[in-house]
Amino acid sequence: MNIVAAIDSFKGSASSEELNAAALAGFSDDVKKCNIPIADGGEGTMAAIHADLGGKYIEVVTTDPLANEITAECLLTTFNGRKIAIIESAAVIGINLVEQTDDTTLNASSYGLGKMVLAVLKENVQQIYLTLGGTATSDGGLGFLQAIGATLESNQKNNPNLGNPLLWADTIDFATIDTRLAAVELIGLADVTNPYAGKNGFAHVFGPQKGASAATIERLDQRAETFIMHLPQSKQQYVNKAGSGAAGGLGGAILLAGGQLQSGFQTIASIIGFEEKIAQADFVITGEGRIDQQTDQGKVPFGVATIAHDLGIPVIVLCGSRQTNIGEMAHLAMGVFSIQQGPITLAEAMDHERTLANTYLTARGIAGIIDGIHKESAKKAK
Amino acid sequence: MNIVAAIDSFKGSASSEELNAAALAGFSDDVKKCNIPIADGGEGTMAAIHADLGGKYIEVVTTDPLANEITAECLLTTFNGRKIAIIESAAVIGINLVEQTDDTTLNASSYGLGKMVLAVLKENVQQIYLTLGGTATSDGGLGFLQAIGATLESNQKNNPNLGNPLLWADTIDFATIDTRLAAVELIGLADVTNPYAGKNGFAHVFGPQKGASAATIERLDQRAETFIMHLPQSKQQYVNKAGSGAAGGLGGAILLAGGQLQSGFQTIASIIGFEEKIAQADFVITGEGRIDQQTDQGKVPFGVATIAHDLGIPVIVLCGSRQTNIGEMAHLAMGVFSIQQGPITLAEAMDHERTLANTYLTARGIAGIIDGIHKESAKKAK
Repeated sequence: MNIVAAIDSFKGSASSEELNAAALAGFSDDVKKCNIPIADGGEGTMAAIHADLGGKYIEVVTTDPLANEITAECLLTTFNGRKIAIIESAAVIGINLVEQTDDTTLNASSYGLGKMVLAVLKENVQQIYLTLGGTATSDGGLGFLQAIGATLESNQKNNPNLGNPLLWADTIDFATIDTRLAAVELIGLADVTNPYAGKNGFAHVFGPQKGASAATIERLDQRAETFIMHLPQSKQQYVNKAGSGAAGGLGGAILLAGGQLQSGFQTIASIIGFEEKIAQADFVITGEGRIDQQTDQGKVPFGVATIAHDLGIPVIVLCGSRQTNIGEMAHLAMGVFSIQQGPITLAEAMDHERTLANTYLTARGIAGIIDGIHKESAKKAK
Repeated sequence: MNIVAAIDSFKGSASSEELNAAALAGFSDDVKKCNIPIADGGEGTMAAIHADLGGKYIEVVTTDPLANEITAECLLTTFNGRKIAIIESAAVIGINLVEQTDDTTLNASSYGLGKMVLAVLKENVQQIYLTLGGTATSDGGLGFLQAIGATLESNQKNNPNLGNPLLWADTIDFATIDTRLAAVELIGLADVTNPYAGKNGFAHVFGPQKGASAATIERLDQRAETFIMHLPQSKQQYVNKAGSGAAGGLGGAILLAGGQLQSGFQTIASIIGFEEKIAQADFVITGEGRIDQQTDQGKVPFGVATIAHDLGIPVIVLCGSRQTNIGEMAHLAMGVFSIQQGPITLAEAMDHERTLANTYLTARGIAGIIDGIHKESAKKAK
């Protein structure tokens, strides 16, 4: 028997590779096991690609969402003969680096991410992948654009002098963007399809989880509309594209800078050759911290289950918590199991060691059933 | 495929029959399903026997642990041509009927249970089964003995005049016990092996969970020793027997009254013909609210798993919570699964509807795996 584990990291608890190892440890050593670290463009993307392609992590001194100096890592590696960089936005301007308050939203800028992109340009990379999950910013990506050289100007008499450039910048000049970027493919990895502004835009949809007050959300969204209005006609299409609202508008900023947006899971799966890796598996274990109605919107378990399903390989899903209604996942997965072993608080459940121990216990139960059914079948066949 | 569900009640949450139904609902209707309500001598014993043998429930007006009038049910039925009564002690003198305080322990008496035994004697039963789990009393069973006619007398100048007769009774005269009892088999169902007194006696082991203070525990145990000392020499053997410490000493009282103690699960399994019922099963689902190191001390999942194991039938265990170390159960069960679907408080987890919904979800996951493995095997066989 041949088992693949490709579980997304449980955010804040355990990495993909650790969870895979814990789940595979639940199976007997007679089984062929394969640990495939995986991600969908959030936490763990660099690790997933590094596990397959190798490469080196470099440290870059840049700024966090609130303009404090921060040293963050990014991955340089080679893919199909081209030198590529993988940058996890959350490592530079992540929501976990700051408090989620209204004040943070008014001051957070994606500037530091742009600085990191400039830093990797020195490494002569041909492609830069930027993951667009878990950011603290709601600046429409203007800080990022400013850092890579775009010129922001304000028409306002009283510039509010807040760290979030969306609150003061009215016009943007793209002509001053660092010319080296023209020779590089800039690829944002996003799985949300939100537009830049409006009711489904970044302010209204992601503002609340970043700490923005209702008034700030309204203000940010109006500023985003104003910014779009002042854009050159030829550029306005970009901020209407699906995904331009990802990461507080960074999606739109990447498009405005001449880059493109791709599905996080699909891109990572393609880079690491996921389909070929699992083709010989008898079944695949995947999972994520939470399985709910959003899971089938491009998250790791949905991506893994879809590929496995097309290959005719049964899929088992492990999670920290599951909702009753799990959309398409209910049909794609052979079984969906929470790893919790009893009543427990969220904080206790998220403990690193406990998460891995519970993953092991749950996998052991599943392994026991698979083994038992095989033995039964063998007995009957005699 | 032929599946049997025989899950013990989750105390305070859901009955055996309900949990069986919820688990079986997780399997496709192509499967032959058998719902066997089961118990180990605790809550659900009457229901388990009634589900198999039928019979009638009668209401008896008696007294609760604190001498308040209470109407409690017991089951009358016929087993092997003999008329039998099943009395759940917890329904009359149960821990859930009172607050667990020191004051309760000082005043709680098993008297009402004796009154119920006298009531069923009028029904011309030949056997009376008394379950010895979940009682509020720590009276050495003296209240029970008093109610069935034994004479208790005190040597103390200052009779403390508390409701718990162990605190004042020094001597007992068995000669006055209701003579009708001589013609009846009195059978206590217990799965604990504690003696009457001493460090492993009822006061020390079960006193704390009943609300007794350290001082009260010491006092009760000393009174138990005094009571034993005053017993006729020929009777002293009974209070040293394993199980005499069950239910606050009720075990010993039943032995002193000429009765016997039996394993709860074994007796119930034998009455309902459990082994024959599961003989044709492809696998058996059992479980209990909690699976831990005590489970293999005679609880339902251990009993079910042992019988199934001897018959070569794989067993799946469901529970509300499991400990990492589950003793023998780890070897007897194909898989052990908590039904919890994520972080949750104990109170929320114990909600009746949620318990059944989570049991269903967990069983559906297991059913999916079994089904998936069967399909895989069939595909390979082609």
